Amino acid sequence: MNTHTHEIKGYGDIKLFAGTASTSLSNKIAEYLDKKLCERDIILFANDNLFVKLHESVRGQDVYVIQTTSRPVQQNLMELLIALQTLRLDSAARITAVVPYLCYGRSDKKDQPRVPITARLVADMIEVAGADRYITLDPHAGQVQGFFSIPGDVLTASHAIEDYIKENLLEKLTNPVIMTVDLGFAKKGRNYAESLDMPIAFIEKRRVANDSNAEALNIIGDVNGCDVIIVDDEVDTGGSIAQAIRLARQNGARDVYLAFVHPVFSSNAAKRLSSLDLKGIITTDTVPIPEASKALFGDRLSICSVAPMLAEVILRAHEGRSVGELFDE
Amino acid sequence: MNTHTHEIKGYGDIKLFAGTASTSLSNKIAEYLDKKLCERDIILFANDNLFVKLHESVRGQDVYVIQTTSRPVQQNLMELLIALQTLRLDSAARITAVVPYLCYGRSDKKDQPRVPITARLVADMIEVAGADRYITLDPHAGQVQGFFSIPGDVLTASHAIEDYIKENLLEKLTNPVIMTVDLGFAKKGRNYAESLDMPIAFIEKRRVANDSNAEALNIIGDVNGCDVIIVDDEVDTGGSIAQAIRLARQNGARDVYLAFVHPVFSSNAAKRLSSLDLKGIITTDTVPIPEASKALFGDRLSICSVAPMLAEVILRAHEGRSVGELFDE
Amino acid sequence: MNTHTHEIKGYGDIKLFAGTASTSLSNKIAEYLDKKLCERDIILFANDNLFVKLHESVRGQDVYVIQTTSRPVQQNLMELLIALQTLRLDSAARITAVVPYLCYGRSDKKDQPRVPITARLVADMIEVAGADRYITLDPHAGQVQGFFSIPGDVLTASHAIEDYIKENLLEKLTNPVIMTVDLGFAKKGRNYAESLDMPIAFIEKRRVANDSNAEALNIIGDVNGCDVIIVDDEVDTGGSIAQAIRLARQNGARDVYLAFVHPVFSSNAAKRLSSLDLKGIITTDTVPIPEASKALFGDRLSICSVAPMLAEVILRAHEGRSVGELFDE
Amino acid sequence: MNTHTHEIKGYGDIKLFAGTASTSLSNKIAEYLDKKLCERDIILFANDNLFVKLHESVRGQDVYVIQTTSRPVQQNLMELLIALQTLRLDSAARITAVVPYLCYGRSDKKDQPRVPITARLVADMIEVAGADRYITLDPHAGQVQGFFSIPGDVLTASHAIEDYIKENLLEKLTNPVIMTVDLGFAKKGRNYAESLDMPIAFIEKRRVANDSNAEALNIIGDVNGCDVIIVDDEVDTGGSIAQAIRLARQNGARDVYLAFVHPVFSSNAAKRLSSLDLKGIITTDTVPIPEASKALFGDRLSICSVAPMLAEVILRAHEGRSVGELFDE
Amino acid sequence: MNTHTHEIKGYGDIKLFAGTASTSLSNKIAEYLDKKLCERDIILFANDNLFVKLHESVRGQDVYVIQTTSRPVQQNLMELLIALQTLRLDSAARITAVVPYLCYGRSDKKDQPRVPITARLVADMIEVAGADRYITLDPHAGQVQGFFSIPGDVLTASHAIEDYIKENLLEKLTNPVIMTVDLGFAKKGRNYAESLDMPIAFIEKRRVANDSNAEALNIIGDVNGCDVIIVDDEVDTGGSIAQAIRLARQNGARDVYLAFVHPVFSSNAAKRLSSLDLKGIITTDTVPIPEASKALFGDRLSICSVAPMLAEVILRAHEGRSVGELFDE
Amino acid sequence: MNTHTHEIKGYGDIKLFAGTASTSLSNKIAEYLDKKLCERDIILFANDNLFVKLHESVRGQDVYVIQTTSRPVQQNLMELLIALQTLRLDSAARITAVVPYLCYGRSDKKDQPRVPITARLVADMIEVAGADRYITLDPHAGQVQGFFSIPGDVLTASHAIEDYIKENLLEKLTNPVIMTVDLGFAKKGRNYAESLDMPIAFIEKRRVANDSNAEALNIIGDVNGCDVIIVDDEVDTGGSIAQAIRLARQNGARDVYLAFVHPVFSSNAAKRLSSLDLKGIITTDTVPIPEASKALFGDRLSICSVAPMLAEVILRAHEGRSVGELFDE
Repeated sequence: MNTHTHEIKGYGDIKLFAGTASTSLSNKIAEYLDKKLCERDIILFANDNLFVKLHESVRGQDVYVIQTTSRPVQQNLMELLIALQTLRLDSAARITAVVPYLCYGRSDKKDQPRVPITARLVADMIEVAGADRYITLDPHAGQVQGFFSIPGDVLTASHAIEDYIKENLLEKLTNPVIMTVDLGFAKKGRNYAESLDMPIAFIEKRRVANDSNAEALNIIGDVNGCDVIIVDDEVDTGGSIAQAIRLARQNGARDVYLAFVHPVFSSNAAKRLSSLDLKGIITTDTVPIPEASKALFGDRLSICSVAPMLAEVILRAHEGRSVGELFDE
Repeated sequence: MNTHTHEIKGYGDIKLFAGTASTSLSNKIAEYLDKKLCERDIILFANDNLFVKLHESVRGQDVYVIQTTSRPVQQNLMELLIALQTLRLDSAARITAVVPYLCYGRSDKKDQPRVPITARLVADMIEVAGADRYITLDPHAGQVQGFFSIPGDVLTASHAIEDYIKENLLEKLTNPVIMTVDLGFAKKGRNYAESLDMPIAFIEKRRVANDSNAEALNIIGDVNGCDVIIVDDEVDTGGSIAQAIRLARQNGARDVYLAFVHPVFSSNAAKRLSSLDLKGIITTDTVPIPEASKALFGDRLSICSVAPMLAEVILRAHEGRSVGELFDE
Repeated sequence: MNTHTHEIKGYGDIKLFAGTASTSLSNKIAEYLDKKLCERDIILFANDNLFVKLHESVRGQDVYVIQTTSRPVQQNLMELLIALQTLRLDSAARITAVVPYLCYGRSDKKDQPRVPITARLVADMIEVAGADRYITLDPHAGQVQGFFSIPGDVLTASHAIEDYIKENLLEKLTNPVIMTVDLGFAKKGRNYAESLDMPIAFIEKRRVANDSNAEALNIIGDVNGCDVIIVDDEVDTGGSIAQAIRLARQNGARDVYLAFVHPVFSSNAAKRLSSLDLKGIITTDTVPIPEASKALFGDRLSICSVAPMLAEVILRAHEGRSVGELFDE
Repeated sequence: MNTHTHEIKGYGDIKLFAGTASTSLSNKIAEYLDKKLCERDIILFANDNLFVKLHESVRGQDVYVIQTTSRPVQQNLMELLIALQTLRLDSAARITAVVPYLCYGRSDKKDQPRVPITARLVADMIEVAGADRYITLDPHAGQVQGFFSIPGDVLTASHAIEDYIKENLLEKLTNPVIMTVDLGFAKKGRNYAESLDMPIAFIEKRRVANDSNAEALNIIGDVNGCDVIIVDDEVDTGGSIAQAIRLARQNGARDVYLAFVHPVFSSNAAKRLSSLDLKGIITTDTVPIPEASKALFGDRLSICSVAPMLAEVILRAHEGRSVGELFDE
Repeated sequence: MNTHTHEIKGYGDIKLFAGTASTSLSNKIAEYLDKKLCERDIILFANDNLFVKLHESVRGQDVYVIQTTSRPVQQNLMELLIALQTLRLDSAARITAVVPYLCYGRSDKKDQPRVPITARLVADMIEVAGADRYITLDPHAGQVQGFFSIPGDVLTASHAIEDYIKENLLEKLTNPVIMTVDLGFAKKGRNYAESLDMPIAFIEKRRVANDSNAEALNIIGDVNGCDVIIVDDEVDTGGSIAQAIRLARQNGARDVYLAFVHPVFSSNAAKRLSSLDLKGIITTDTVPIPEASKALFGDRLSICSVAPMLAEVILRAHEGRSVGELFDE
Repeated sequence: MNTHTHEIKGYGDIKLFAGTASTSLSNKIAEYLDKKLCERDIILFANDNLFVKLHESVRGQDVYVIQTTSRPVQQNLMELLIALQTLRLDSAARITAVVPYLCYGRSDKKDQPRVPITARLVADMIEVAGADRYITLDPHAGQVQGFFSIPGDVLTASHAIEDYIKENLLEKLTNPVIMTVDLGFAKKGRNYAESLDMPIAFIEKRRVANDSNAEALNIIGDVNGCDVIIVDDEVDTGGSIAQAIRLARQNGARDVYLAFVHPVFSSNAAKRLSSLDLKGIITTDTVPIPEASKALFGDRLSICSVAPMLAEVILRAHEGRSVGELFDE
């Protein structure tokens, strides 16, 4: 529970609004801030139309809408947008979209002609619906901040994951090495490696010349005789992870761990992941993992909650205090 | 097939882009205009992310995106928006969103406090995604035109339905009367009645004083000894229709018919409707009806295609000719 | 006088600015709130240019501009817009346009090709001039809320009128029935009927086939032997009312009353109305009625002031308290 | 009649739309371009609501709306705005507001606190209503071009007036001198003087110290024994002109002439001006002068029509040819 | 030091941010307000990229960015813009750009075809970067206020200059007369003359007919036997001033003084000015004058600081008190 | 010279406008397209104000503004913006900013608190100045496309560089390996490696724990006995390159080459680079290299011109043909 006593001013009282996609996380944030969640109805009618109704007025208040945008992506996003508009039309003083996992983050540039930049579209939609600010964690690319014209707090759960590893894992590891499954994550992988004071290795993929569907994989750096921690921002189908473990083994790796922020877990990813030769999996609650999926992993799965960080950032944003300070920045 | 020979100018060539929600309708429009649909991929990835890729450039062209927004509403809407952005980023000269059924039309005003006006949000989203114009049919309220700041062609399928009734039904009817199931449709019901030269009756609903959930229904106007044609803009669950038929019977009605534009048909509406005591059902293809549902109705179901009208309007919009003229206006 | 003692915060002090079109209403609101109206000059120069000058600064304050937009419509509207810009340029913290009667409400859709949607234009003008919020009463269509992208409080005077009828008229009436002069008002007429627990009847107009200027009128529902209360949102020329009384009489009605929100009273409408066979007329002060016109009606005219409601809503908006709550919503 | 044969391309055909305020000017422009004016209704209803209806579609065309904004200012301005929106909603390809006299030009800065900049508001309104471009003549300050974010052609009738003076007046004059009635017009007065190769004098006004309403006037420069041509951009009440003539006489002037662009002529300005000791008055038709007013002046009044210039500019704008070239620039 | 004790509310605490272009002025303002300047880095990297980093958070605060835009113009302007964006992205509650000298003020209209209106572009850039308000002094034309859509306080240093003349110069002068070097400054020159109760004269420039580069200069008004005070808004190269002094002398002037607001002093203007036959020069610190330049003038140069006025306006803007009141308006 | 004969339509004629920063490149593009550059003045006045004047009208034309934004960055950027506004105000039909090197590309995210995202600001400024589209090459991050809301063609010179290497270098190399000096370029480095069918290595930098200024460098991957080609997007001071060469040598590398797109060359970078142990340097002309700098490198420097690619893309954009097709995409 939060014991800050700073005087709150400027935008009326703080008000927390939880969408349906982040129920557990929202409750933890509310608990941390010692606030009740705004009473509201969110209904999905038979004709697939979403409807939001507030039970209490937010007029002149400083509202935080907590809604992740994992699967069902379109529904969760639309629910977020409708909530934002409802709050704006009810004359909230300021509205902050708190989106722990921001969808479509990988559609962030035209890496081939005639495709969308859906991440920018999502930013535009959030703005047009009425958000004055946003808070999110570990977007695929930091540049997503430049897609918004409203200010935002873009946070990272990597410190929480690093802390977890330092406190719970480090002493058990032999010759630990950080590994990324993709060169696009090389720089962020390096940050993990530097913070944990470990060497780093990368998997490189190349198309095989005569076969457009075949890929050759190769590890750059050394994992032989090492415990490997694969790091990533999100795990979706888990296909790359399976490949990476196999490749690490072939290159002489000892135990393999997996650490990542967003447990997106498409289709049967949880099942697939749980069957892999992974010693431990560290992730967060930016995306809720169904209890059934958790059960598959047993105690191999560790979830670092981002609720305290989000709660603290919401409080500081509301009170006009520095957020960077929170991270010694 | 279209045989117009007007010279096309101004915005480059016409280009038709079909979303996945209106496949059959799009094909009919393309056939009418003797054009091919734009080659494209539309993919729903395992992580529930939609992706659009054009196989050919639309640079400098006049593009029409045909996509209805019936169920799955959020997915169809998002697909429309992503397509619009993709086309805009590919430097199309002009983009028109052709949305036969525009979702969230009934969320068009705050008739109670602290609720959204989602129809305005949808209009904002279509604009921010990149549409320069839009075409739609029979929105719940004509005022939806004022929600857009871009120009649009708001059409009605009522003339097509009236023509169908005049040509196929009128001679079989005894004392025909138009009936609406809601006073909100009274004025549009009157238009049907005037055009078909029939009297009109309305169903009025009232809350029963001592029981907040009970409603008393009442017919205003006379249906005794009459064949009744219930008219509406869309049929969703069909609940009101079932009530209306029962009430009409109680008031001495003979055969009951149902005519409406948008066959939204939520959950098991098709099944429910097909079991009702309806002599005939006239609707359109603004929303696709699954073959299985059609089979339930047999030959009681008549579908007036809006494809020729949409094709003709697209052609006129492209060529800079009057659309109103098409309707003798 | 207002006796609320809630602490006012957020947008500086409350400031009331009255245009020249709602002098009496503005004074009542100011009196209710125990505030003085902002000192200002509003001048119409010989060259027909309007000019506004504030005598005191509104910097950092929460300003409410009270100005109805009845005749002279263009002048009253322009005065509102210039006042909004003046206040914005003087760095007001928040500006709310309080427009009891919003002009051009009936031009809210393109019901024929090649016509304007002037109500949307008016909304755009109010926004571009600098309003952050708006308050209005009984717009012709509730959808006008979707024409604004700023939040607003759209109120209704119908409860005040219903209360007046219940308290002052009901016991004098025999078989009272609500009647609307147009099917477009059917649903709102029903609301009056439900609230007053009376039956309802409608007048339907149809073009006569062989004569484009002739209209056939017809009552749907029963008024025989009934006291009739005609309800509407505004009365303009009064032509429809004259027709309606005649038709009611032909159908056996007893006394006829007229209840409506906005006394727009074009040209000689007051004179025409006063000569009609109306037992009583209930309206409000959203549009000021000249004393000479009032005199024509004598004690048949009852005016329910909307000043207390507007004052209360302004206060709640300023203090960040629920407005819906005021109406038990 | 226009005999240009350049190929017209780009924005569809040219279409001229005339408001009700510039009927004669619009006809002259249409005649010059050998075009018909767009058929339309413009109605002022009894409730003071303006209504525009096009009789023909402007879809895909390049439309020019000709409407001056002299008295009744608010009505003419609103008519312009509604016309712009109507044309935009009818999908015109490009819309140019042709406003020979742009109202509120003198409200172009805050020269005292807490006043509006109405000229900017007017620019905003014209843009929000739907103009893509504008054409106007001799605004009070050239900076008004910076109030618009759309491009425009800001023309001057001074060359036409200078040409008239050279051809019709110059040989009759003795020691001619240009005089301005206000130091704010000093620089533009100089342009007339330079073009006509005449000296220049100015009237300076000062407040008299002990009397806030009194002004002392003084001529800077020499008019003794000279024929004086007073030049200005517009004449409104004519009060300054009367003063200027008196002062010129007191300083030994011979005959006095008056040359200005916009005959705004408020209230009884025409009558007043016609009674002054003016030998000749040269103006234009940017504002229509009633026949009765013209009659007061007899042959002392010369009107240089701006129709050929506007027509030529419209044509060049439509064809994508240089407008500056027209003025040897 | 400021001793006001009004309670500060609304936008959080006041925060002063100084760019690198107004260091001395910013320090004076900070001293007057008894506030520290915000700690920050402003770095110009080797690749000519500017970078801003705040050392402390401005979240929820009322920030004033003090940065003049004299030479190097582009760099000072870009620094202002980057600072505004940085503060906006750090979630400042309100940001005011305090720009003592606003660059590109003379590019305020298209006085010839095919040129920019750069002053409007600068206003747009300041808005798009994130300013909510602006404060500036003596723009070339007052109309620049209409180029912004955000509110601003446009101040003048003329009162300070007039006060200086009254207190320090007046008793030494014989037959003082105000003179402007350009007719475009005639009206503002008159304001100086009226306030100081002196007559006025103007220099008029004309092209010489047969030589496009030659100009004939001429004084309108009388300076014979007078001490002349040349007034202007800014002095750039000083070329016009040199001409004006020569012409005044030729017309019998006694001593010549120069008073102006913005010491822009391009290239070697300070050197040139200091060599001219000027008895005294009065200016302000809206643009910093290098010490070396000051030394050239010795005690002939008087600088009226605008810091107290800016500080007082910032304070009033922050506290929501009238600024006009400060000038008895 | 271009020999395409496709009919050009839609936006009037093509018009090329060259800023002062890309003179040579602009001439090459014009030559390729067989077009003349638009005649114009671009003046930097003594007061550091930039001024643009077109000698010919661009009304209704399709204008391409070619201006790189290397040093002097602020001046080149401002010149671009003023040119864009000038063209817009002259009623160009469509304006494309062709910016071979887009400044501030590395300021593309907030990687620490309280810093700007200047790349987004630059995108906003380009849009507000009036660009309808943009063309650029190899931005630091592809996500910069999402900073613009206008469409653009984001090209890469990497294919040209790869082709150069294949044709001119490959046969001379022994065990060639691609190396990047930063993990942030790992993925793009991989693209070079894949296209050239070479292995890849990376330099990793880490802070040394006890000394905040010291960095430890390390090569991941193998360069022993290899000819190394360092690849990057831009070279600024060249400091990283010097480090990289040293490190490669220490790890047994043979010859070292350097290939990169943008020769930004800050301060004395050219001198520094030319003194390094580099066998060859391959770059482009997106940023002009002074002749004196070129001389330093002698024949070690190879410049692949991007003019043919830009010319071809401009032509295709103008004609509405696919750009992707140009790259077999």
